[in-house]
Amino acid sequence: MTSRPARTAAPTVLAVDAGGSSTRAAVVDGLGAVLGYATGAAGNPTSSGREPAAANVTATVRAALDDAGGAAPERIAVAMAGASTAPPDWLGSALAAASVPGTVAMEADLAATYLTGSRARLGYAVVSGTGAIAARLVDHRIVEVSDGLGWLVGDDGSGFWIGHRVLRAVAAALDGRGPATTMTVEVLGALPPSDGGAGEVGRPAALGALLSSAYAELPVRLARFAPIAFGAADAGDAVALEIVAEAARGLARTLGAVLADDHDAPIVLGGGVLAGQPRMADTLRAELVRRGLRGRIVIARDGVVGAAVLALEGCGIEVDETVVERIASELEERRRATTAT
Amino acid sequence: MTSRPARTAAPTVLAVDAGGSSTRAAVVDGLGAVLGYATGAAGNPTSSGREPAAANVTATVRAALDDAGGAAPERIAVAMAGASTAPPDWLGSALAAASVPGTVAMEADLAATYLTGSRARLGYAVVSGTGAIAARLVDHRIVEVSDGLGWLVGDDGSGFWIGHRVLRAVAAALDGRGPATTMTVEVLGALPPSDGGAGEVGRPAALGALLSSAYAELPVRLARFAPIAFGAADAGDAVALEIVAEAARGLARTLGAVLADDHDAPIVLGGGVLAGQPRMADTLRAELVRRGLRGRIVIARDGVVGAAVLALEGCGIEVDETVVERIASELEERRRATTAT
Repeated sequence: MTSRPARTAAPTVLAVDAGGSSTRAAVVDGLGAVLGYATGAAGNPTSSGREPAAANVTATVRAALDDAGGAAPERIAVAMAGASTAPPDWLGSALAAASVPGTVAMEADLAATYLTGSRARLGYAVVSGTGAIAARLVDHRIVEVSDGLGWLVGDDGSGFWIGHRVLRAVAAALDGRGPATTMTVEVLGALPPSDGGAGEVGRPAALGALLSSAYAELPVRLARFAPIAFGAADAGDAVALEIVAEAARGLARTLGAVLADDHDAPIVLGGGVLAGQPRMADTLRAELVRRGLRGRIVIARDGVVGAAVLALEGCGIEVDETVVERIASELEERRRATTAT
Repeated sequence: MTSRPARTAAPTVLAVDAGGSSTRAAVVDGLGAVLGYATGAAGNPTSSGREPAAANVTATVRAALDDAGGAAPERIAVAMAGASTAPPDWLGSALAAASVPGTVAMEADLAATYLTGSRARLGYAVVSGTGAIAARLVDHRIVEVSDGLGWLVGDDGSGFWIGHRVLRAVAAALDGRGPATTMTVEVLGALPPSDGGAGEVGRPAALGALLSSAYAELPVRLARFAPIAFGAADAGDAVALEIVAEAARGLARTLGAVLADDHDAPIVLGGGVLAGQPRMADTLRAELVRRGLRGRIVIARDGVVGAAVLALEGCGIEVDETVVERIASELEERRRATTAT
């Protein structure tokens, strides 16, 4: 008996969420069944470089297709930050070289996040991961966007923004310029072991270790300090609480810039910081309510479900609520299985 | 008749202020006569790179010695930021290769700035140029220091800090996230001509030009936007006024971290931002008075006079007030002459 792929409802599509720290890929059919799933390394060409990102996305896609027993996708929707300005064909040739068939479409991660959390015709998405951005969507397409300008120029309330504030607050505390904070011991503990070098006249040695570490890496890597702010805020640290509150005000201003009159439209929150840190989502929720927003606020864990919806719609399939719910629940099962093994 | 150097009072020393944007060198004798003077390009090895900095300092030193008719300095004092952690011998071999004699000593720019503005045994220096730092000095030596941690970790109230705030405020205004500011037109006018490319969905084109420019350069180059804040503040722009006020509060906190009980000790303000922008010095002065400081506040244009004092003291010469005043006034004449030609 030869093994053969399970019977599936055509078309089969591939949904990819290519993020700055990891990539997720799912093989989905026209009825919303999840046939394969895989996770892999960072897949954003801007933050990881074009070739490493293409290699990571291709490997993840290949693994998802293998998990699906060798399905041939008709369409591949790749949700990513900066999709509209991505280098042309940064991914196509790598996929072709790995014998992955199907039309490749780059989709805005904001749209995929939105569609993961809502099917409403009008609505908003706010994403805070390493960067931060907000958009207004009409008919599942972005019509207005705010921030997403990167660590140096914008990204208010992002993981980088928070991690950078943590670093500066700890440096100021060590330096006697700012209030003491419980984050100091956490940040110093997270630094690579130092040789305890001489340091400058009149400076604490720990400050030297902090400086060497901070300037040795790409600035965006400071986003790794963001979780320290949430832990310290939970324990009541005043400096951390103010950083989280200011991040929420920043994200609310970003959303405010794309708000139309529809204050009842749903707001989908996504990205590692908003989906992974309940305190950040709760603080932003309170800030939005304070500003008079009355729409349903939903958290989208990532953009895979939305990318699947976009891929199916790209094949001319009308995707109803039942299909979306099936994708979401089967994906959740796959994830639990992946985590368990 | 053969030409020969003018008669001078031994020893002859070389005073160098090696800054992040320019270098100044003066040849001074034991009575405070300025025998030669020259200015040149950036001379800080940290911000400009070791070899370019060494080449610029050497060329400036050579020009000052030539201006002095070929004097042979006994000692060369090079005032620079980060002197205590500068790479060993980053300058010595370049000077030797250019046949410049004399013992080379690296001196803290803070100490040189302080000695340019004050001869008091106890006092403070606050420098805001591209970076920002403050120190307490006893017997002309730094005993405590605060900030000077660089653009990513500290430098509150520095030229970078201000320029970065200007850029972010303009980006937020263009993005609809922040209040309008007259700085927008100034910043956009200062950008290199753009090809007016497509830009992203739902974004003003000017924002694209701003982003390309900001990410194409070293972050510290944003310090060039700082003067825009002062111009706009003079014209009453609320966003610019707040940036300048917050810079003053940052510098005051930095000074506060090194303050001892001597609230009557002199405070010397230096660096391009404090010495070149009267509004910044005035705003800081008001903030310091508000905080109860009663010491004389002096502005030091740069560290050349102080470097000359350190060089002479390094030769065992006692430098009295008359000598310092002579160096300062003769240097001022040289500068006027240099500017006039």
